[in-house]
Amino acid sequence: MRKLVAFGEIMLRLSPESGHRLFQNGTMRTCFGGSEANVAALCAQLGIPSSFVTKIPKNEIGDGAVRHLSGLGVDTSLIVRGGDRLGVYYYEKGACERPSKCIYDRAGSAFAGSGIFDYDAGMIFADAAAFHLSGITPALSEKMPDICISLCKEARARGLLVSYDLNHRSKLWDEEKNKEESERILPYVDLFISNMYQANSIFSIGADTASEESACITVARTMMKRYDIKTVALTVRKTLSADENGFYGMIYDGENAYFSKKYVTGIVDRVGSGDAFDGALIASVLKGSDMQTAVEYAVAAAVLKHSIEGDTAYLSDGEIKALAAGADGRVQR
Amino acid sequence: MRKLVAFGEIMLRLSPESGHRLFQNGTMRTCFGGSEANVAALCAQLGIPSSFVTKIPKNEIGDGAVRHLSGLGVDTSLIVRGGDRLGVYYYEKGACERPSKCIYDRAGSAFAGSGIFDYDAGMIFADAAAFHLSGITPALSEKMPDICISLCKEARARGLLVSYDLNHRSKLWDEEKNKEESERILPYVDLFISNMYQANSIFSIGADTASEESACITVARTMMKRYDIKTVALTVRKTLSADENGFYGMIYDGENAYFSKKYVTGIVDRVGSGDAFDGALIASVLKGSDMQTAVEYAVAAAVLKHSIEGDTAYLSDGEIKALAAGADGRVQR
Amino acid sequence: MRKLVAFGEIMLRLSPESGHRLFQNGTMRTCFGGSEANVAALCAQLGIPSSFVTKIPKNEIGDGAVRHLSGLGVDTSLIVRGGDRLGVYYYEKGACERPSKCIYDRAGSAFAGSGIFDYDAGMIFADAAAFHLSGITPALSEKMPDICISLCKEARARGLLVSYDLNHRSKLWDEEKNKEESERILPYVDLFISNMYQANSIFSIGADTASEESACITVARTMMKRYDIKTVALTVRKTLSADENGFYGMIYDGENAYFSKKYVTGIVDRVGSGDAFDGALIASVLKGSDMQTAVEYAVAAAVLKHSIEGDTAYLSDGEIKALAAGADGRVQR
Amino acid sequence: MRKLVAFGEIMLRLSPESGHRLFQNGTMRTCFGGSEANVAALCAQLGIPSSFVTKIPKNEIGDGAVRHLSGLGVDTSLIVRGGDRLGVYYYEKGACERPSKCIYDRAGSAFAGSGIFDYDAGMIFADAAAFHLSGITPALSEKMPDICISLCKEARARGLLVSYDLNHRSKLWDEEKNKEESERILPYVDLFISNMYQANSIFSIGADTASEESACITVARTMMKRYDIKTVALTVRKTLSADENGFYGMIYDGENAYFSKKYVTGIVDRVGSGDAFDGALIASVLKGSDMQTAVEYAVAAAVLKHSIEGDTAYLSDGEIKALAAGADGRVQR
Amino acid sequence: MRKLVAFGEIMLRLSPESGHRLFQNGTMRTCFGGSEANVAALCAQLGIPSSFVTKIPKNEIGDGAVRHLSGLGVDTSLIVRGGDRLGVYYYEKGACERPSKCIYDRAGSAFAGSGIFDYDAGMIFADAAAFHLSGITPALSEKMPDICISLCKEARARGLLVSYDLNHRSKLWDEEKNKEESERILPYVDLFISNMYQANSIFSIGADTASEESACITVARTMMKRYDIKTVALTVRKTLSADENGFYGMIYDGENAYFSKKYVTGIVDRVGSGDAFDGALIASVLKGSDMQTAVEYAVAAAVLKHSIEGDTAYLSDGEIKALAAGADGRVQR
Amino acid sequence: MRKLVAFGEIMLRLSPESGHRLFQNGTMRTCFGGSEANVAALCAQLGIPSSFVTKIPKNEIGDGAVRHLSGLGVDTSLIVRGGDRLGVYYYEKGACERPSKCIYDRAGSAFAGSGIFDYDAGMIFADAAAFHLSGITPALSEKMPDICISLCKEARARGLLVSYDLNHRSKLWDEEKNKEESERILPYVDLFISNMYQANSIFSIGADTASEESACITVARTMMKRYDIKTVALTVRKTLSADENGFYGMIYDGENAYFSKKYVTGIVDRVGSGDAFDGALIASVLKGSDMQTAVEYAVAAAVLKHSIEGDTAYLSDGEIKALAAGADGRVQR
Repeated sequence: MRKLVAFGEIMLRLSPESGHRLFQNGTMRTCFGGSEANVAALCAQLGIPSSFVTKIPKNEIGDGAVRHLSGLGVDTSLIVRGGDRLGVYYYEKGACERPSKCIYDRAGSAFAGSGIFDYDAGMIFADAAAFHLSGITPALSEKMPDICISLCKEARARGLLVSYDLNHRSKLWDEEKNKEESERILPYVDLFISNMYQANSIFSIGADTASEESACITVARTMMKRYDIKTVALTVRKTLSADENGFYGMIYDGENAYFSKKYVTGIVDRVGSGDAFDGALIASVLKGSDMQTAVEYAVAAAVLKHSIEGDTAYLSDGEIKALAAGADGRVQR
Repeated sequence: MRKLVAFGEIMLRLSPESGHRLFQNGTMRTCFGGSEANVAALCAQLGIPSSFVTKIPKNEIGDGAVRHLSGLGVDTSLIVRGGDRLGVYYYEKGACERPSKCIYDRAGSAFAGSGIFDYDAGMIFADAAAFHLSGITPALSEKMPDICISLCKEARARGLLVSYDLNHRSKLWDEEKNKEESERILPYVDLFISNMYQANSIFSIGADTASEESACITVARTMMKRYDIKTVALTVRKTLSADENGFYGMIYDGENAYFSKKYVTGIVDRVGSGDAFDGALIASVLKGSDMQTAVEYAVAAAVLKHSIEGDTAYLSDGEIKALAAGADGRVQR
Repeated sequence: MRKLVAFGEIMLRLSPESGHRLFQNGTMRTCFGGSEANVAALCAQLGIPSSFVTKIPKNEIGDGAVRHLSGLGVDTSLIVRGGDRLGVYYYEKGACERPSKCIYDRAGSAFAGSGIFDYDAGMIFADAAAFHLSGITPALSEKMPDICISLCKEARARGLLVSYDLNHRSKLWDEEKNKEESERILPYVDLFISNMYQANSIFSIGADTASEESACITVARTMMKRYDIKTVALTVRKTLSADENGFYGMIYDGENAYFSKKYVTGIVDRVGSGDAFDGALIASVLKGSDMQTAVEYAVAAAVLKHSIEGDTAYLSDGEIKALAAGADGRVQR
Repeated sequence: MRKLVAFGEIMLRLSPESGHRLFQNGTMRTCFGGSEANVAALCAQLGIPSSFVTKIPKNEIGDGAVRHLSGLGVDTSLIVRGGDRLGVYYYEKGACERPSKCIYDRAGSAFAGSGIFDYDAGMIFADAAAFHLSGITPALSEKMPDICISLCKEARARGLLVSYDLNHRSKLWDEEKNKEESERILPYVDLFISNMYQANSIFSIGADTASEESACITVARTMMKRYDIKTVALTVRKTLSADENGFYGMIYDGENAYFSKKYVTGIVDRVGSGDAFDGALIASVLKGSDMQTAVEYAVAAAVLKHSIEGDTAYLSDGEIKALAAGADGRVQR
Repeated sequence: MRKLVAFGEIMLRLSPESGHRLFQNGTMRTCFGGSEANVAALCAQLGIPSSFVTKIPKNEIGDGAVRHLSGLGVDTSLIVRGGDRLGVYYYEKGACERPSKCIYDRAGSAFAGSGIFDYDAGMIFADAAAFHLSGITPALSEKMPDICISLCKEARARGLLVSYDLNHRSKLWDEEKNKEESERILPYVDLFISNMYQANSIFSIGADTASEESACITVARTMMKRYDIKTVALTVRKTLSADENGFYGMIYDGENAYFSKKYVTGIVDRVGSGDAFDGALIASVLKGSDMQTAVEYAVAAAVLKHSIEGDTAYLSDGEIKALAAGADGRVQR
Repeated sequence: MRKLVAFGEIMLRLSPESGHRLFQNGTMRTCFGGSEANVAALCAQLGIPSSFVTKIPKNEIGDGAVRHLSGLGVDTSLIVRGGDRLGVYYYEKGACERPSKCIYDRAGSAFAGSGIFDYDAGMIFADAAAFHLSGITPALSEKMPDICISLCKEARARGLLVSYDLNHRSKLWDEEKNKEESERILPYVDLFISNMYQANSIFSIGADTASEESACITVARTMMKRYDIKTVALTVRKTLSADENGFYGMIYDGENAYFSKKYVTGIVDRVGSGDAFDGALIASVLKGSDMQTAVEYAVAAAVLKHSIEGDTAYLSDGEIKALAAGADGRVQR
């Protein structure tokens, strides 16, 4: 099977224990994560050969990131080693009515400082079937949008499935800037993924979200027409509290809208649930699933991620399928 | 007061921290448990002299199991030391929509390898008032059913209260085999305990579970008539999610059905909640409670167990009574 | 800005890990806390210069308490060092249907053994704007009521805002005794704070709690008239389970009753939520907020405290305001 | 086999993690211990039926102490439940050149408050072969010396082996007071145990410690003659650093002095090593070992205790014998 | 570069925290290890493509082992998945005078139950330069010696460097049996590695160990002649205490004996230090180092392993070279 | 008493548990530290009013640093809040023959980015008696040397004791650059502190270190003459292994050399031991101690720091004096 290539930043995450504020005691939980790295990690676990492309420093901190990915079966041989530092982010999990808090310390990272010549498209896309990145990546430096476009172009040219998750991060750039750069990337994108509300806002689509499901269809149709995209996948999250979220998704293929079941899920750690959606969706598409199967599978993976500490969706194909089949969750039908 | 004797296997349990998948970090929580051991542990805490009979290896792993039981006041002097290994089970607690996962590594245990001559009924039943075992035990080896029957016979012959919790484990045997062996044991049983759905299915009773309460009565009546049992206690659990369960129980004495209140409980760790039901029920019966008191007490113990990490119901008589009295739970009336 | 002075006991708190019973494993979480100390700690974080007055032993246990308070910005220079021991309390957090359990080991503490000559009102009230204590303090020794009254008198005489949280602790004294001593203190109190049900019961007000909101008004009016108090703040808590509480508050200024939004909050640790109410209320009042703003702010702080392990409300002004503004909690309107 | 009875106080011990100062982070390791309790715990592990007699409060803290002892096989049925609190001690382990620090918070304990009528000699000494206590016990209250003497007398009268470890604690009383009370106890003592230097000082024996071994003999002879004691066992410890101690022992039977090997041992936790000496010595004597065997065994147990966190010598007979046989320690011959 | 293939068992290791006895508290540290797996893990870190061949169950426990190896860069694609269980071993680290304790629970493992048809020599040895196994492997089942011999033969036939570490485990078989089976394997071995004392005893060489260094030479010469081996590497360990060991090594190439420096090292965890010697030696040989360089490198790796918790030598080439170059250890010259 | 002002950077330190390599498991110990911050922290504990001046970001990471310092009694009111990030450093403690490893991630910190206008000398030096900084500070940015010189000048002008610890960090700059900048600072320095070997090398003094003590005197005399310094304090460290160091110090006042005792100390964590020397020395000097007392006190503090995890010397005056008095360390006389 040909591989998925994901491109982006991987960071060290530092989190206090559940129920504790930052530095409340002298211990931090650590893990490594980043949107595209999380996608590669899940795809690899689901049986898709996956390679993560990034630049990380040639020190023990970088080694830690490599070990994390290798352990999950991600190919790390294309990772460029060099540059200054691995980005760090502090993540304090919320609880009850207290929201989660994320503090980035990623400026000056090896990845943000990397340039187009760090990446060799020929090597990167050998044997590849798909290329994935998210809207976080072009936000990381002035040069990054061009690097992303260049790689997307190359991927397109080789006939790969190019997927792009809008993934807006307001701490990195504003919506206007995101729109501007995303519009330069979208011409090379086959599969566009986004939170429905985010896409609606950033692309000023103006769908009436009072009726959420039809808003999904409006957003998907608009993106499709406006940017000539083949497939649009949207997710909808409702924050019921820091401890409970509603979640569902939809795929639109230009003709039909395939909605998943709607879940209400508790939250152990919601970071990476969108990435789990992406990873499971891509894996499902690469395996040739139909749209309805794919959206149920992707949403089930996203929901399951909420139950796991850290960035990574430690999940097997069987576990995701069991939930998608309605095993014993408290699905709202 | 004369003692309760419980017979079965005790294992080492290994669990990752809450919200973590197996081996996600380098730490495991350990405890010792097993259905009948958990029953003895609760009975001892509730003031019933309790003795646990099993066979465990003569090494530090076996010593750990003995210390656990002794610490809770269980008499361990009848435990046979010898044989190969202590069974292990890995238990990954579920969360949100992710179900719990149990991986047995109990084959070849000292207990499974034990034979009838390891157990001296004279010594075991001296000063005993009751004998308890569960359907897990006969499932553990080819010889086990005969050992169980032999001990039940002896217990019956001495006038003990013999209790048997059906406790079907599909990873150990199938329902047909369970039925076959249970039917050889039931003639010596005074108090039959089971999840209502399990009994209904294994004994092909065919109660209509659309009306759950009347199904309870049908199952109880059928078991009673078919196997000439004096008392039947049934529990009903509804899995609302990995984090929330409904739970209630019923005792049927041939004339009346005594239903407990119906609880909805959160879940810290549901392992051992059925055992807590058994233990509290037996303790209550041995103390001479009436049926309504006994079922409320047993269900309250089972519900409280959901709030405690590990296999063991660390509970006092006062705590159970307080909940049974409706203290401040969110009881559905 | 002039300072708040809080007077009371600070103790070492020992808690097993979440989901564990006391001594279930060999680890305890420690923190330092006490009602008035928690108030001072929050006020200091909210930008009110705050000083905590108490007596603690001159040993490493006392040093630990001082470090805790200093780290949060509380002035500890008025703390008297001497006497025998720091009080200890064991706090086992409840879960599901299992209630929390609090075991005091505070008898014979340095504070309880302190006398009037340990405290120098001149130094204590220099530059002070407010003086706070709770009903726990007079309950701690025979001499304490007189010390409290003496300090309240001095504070009143200097024109400070004197606040008193009824805070009944049934393990320390009975309701009658509380009433008797509180009635000696109330003449010097400007701001009376209490759980509505507690005040209604201790002062035999007889408000009809079937209608909870009008009971709040009745209790406030009665207290105001009976004891000539300027402002009454009441809180109402509903224990839905050990994991979920309802919570709201009201301020009555003699003319109007200002009710906060009503929250349903999950519970990581509810200890100190009432103290967070007090601290945020006092801070808000000292900053000159209007009553509606103050009650929303105080209730938001109390609700947020439920999400944090330990006694201390580690909270910033911005976090409290965000929830009060209705950020994304699951507020019942 | 007839049992050993040990009498004294058991406390909750709270310790920061190794290498940490008190309250440096928010975690404490807990265990239960006390000199005589530790003796009983080791004897029980070595196969001597052992009963610990004390008074502890009827709450969960007391329950924790009981579970600890029961888990090790100590009979706890003679423990009186009642009174106010369980004593606490904070123990910060030293390291390198930093000495260990012990802060007692034991005043007002249930045991210290107990009286002679709490203890029923008839029940306590039924089936007993030996009675052990240490010099800590009479130091705990004004009534304690009389209680100790009364129990020693009863034990003597019944022909039990009465052992007394001088165990001076300067934080509890001064040497003069210790001497005075010990002299009232010694007439009933068969086996006197002490650190040689302590005995030399408290009883003003004046042995020349320049020659340590002959000082041992002088101290033993003097004690024996002066107080008509049958056997004297002395230990000698050299503090090389907080991480390394020298240790050896001697038994004198009136005719011969039996010296053990001399060990230099690292230190994980030296608390309870003297108690391990006592426990192993008593067990060895009760099993009928000769003096040389007994002293080697007792010293080996004491040395091994240094390798174990907490108060309790978790040790088996085989482990002690292996070291006594010279297994592969770095014994100084 | 062509790869190293290592063949053997990988187990789950369970260890209590340092200074604690087994089950002293409710936590275990876990890691995965086994002699040959540890060799592959170090070789991979040192830049030698390394593949580990074994059979492990197709469950989450097996997945954990795979993740561990993959994370370190070991190729796991040749691992056979199937069979019953992953072997477990309990490892309690010693301290001071208390020796470490190892309890195997590996009977019935998937690997021990594997047969010759589980392993496909063609696939295994494709692109291989070296084949490594230890004397533990043939001890694991009746079939294992034949499997080992068959694989060694195949490896030899393909011109690979075949290395064999005698690694006697007295809990698995006795010395006679080891000798018998090793003698069937040695004809295919190029590089024989052993603890000098073990080889001397098992092969009844009778070297006079009073002069340790010349004994090394005698043992090496004898093995070489008797079994026609090209290179012999021997290690010598002196147990000074549970906390301090002496360690050095020697390589004999038929002409010269190359001795390493002699180290005295503290011990954090000595498990896997012999495997680190093997791995570093093989890596050094495959990289073409001369004998003196290789032995210094291998011994430095072994010494450094003593400083790391767990089975795995987490070490880089640079770190090993730095110590071999005499960086700042306390080398005995 | 007038205060000490220390100026420099404070960082977040991340360390794996003892005996673990970086990222070996998913936990890090955190603390805050930096050379001058550590000095202020110890001075504050020793009763010297101490103020730390730095610039840190206005976020929760900065808040953590402030809380750490405030908790120890350091005045943090002069800390400038703003700028980008708090520097981070990863510190992996060595063990046995494995050296400690320090990875800086401090580039781009708020402090390194601060400018001269961030610091108001008038406010900083109000009520000050002493000003301390180390050679790390001028190495942090191009602007830093000028800021340091400017502050030193101001301090001199106000008659403060200005102390400077050379503290060379080869990862920040080379020795030549250090010399160049230090020579611009030294004209304003009263008390120069350094590791003797470092000063000898950086200032090319050429003292013959074969005789270490006379080298100390040569280095001190040369520095004194060359840069017109009043007092020179030197330390000498011998790395015996990662677990054991020799340590002593000397003060030279132009006439006499005062040597401390020579210690051999184990190592829990040696980071900050030089800072402890500085802090205790400054505190001792400010309290008016004589030179011999001061050097013994400073060295005892440095030695004791080796026994404590983290950057901070959690030490009391009494503890330091006890070791200086020769309490029971293993002092080489």
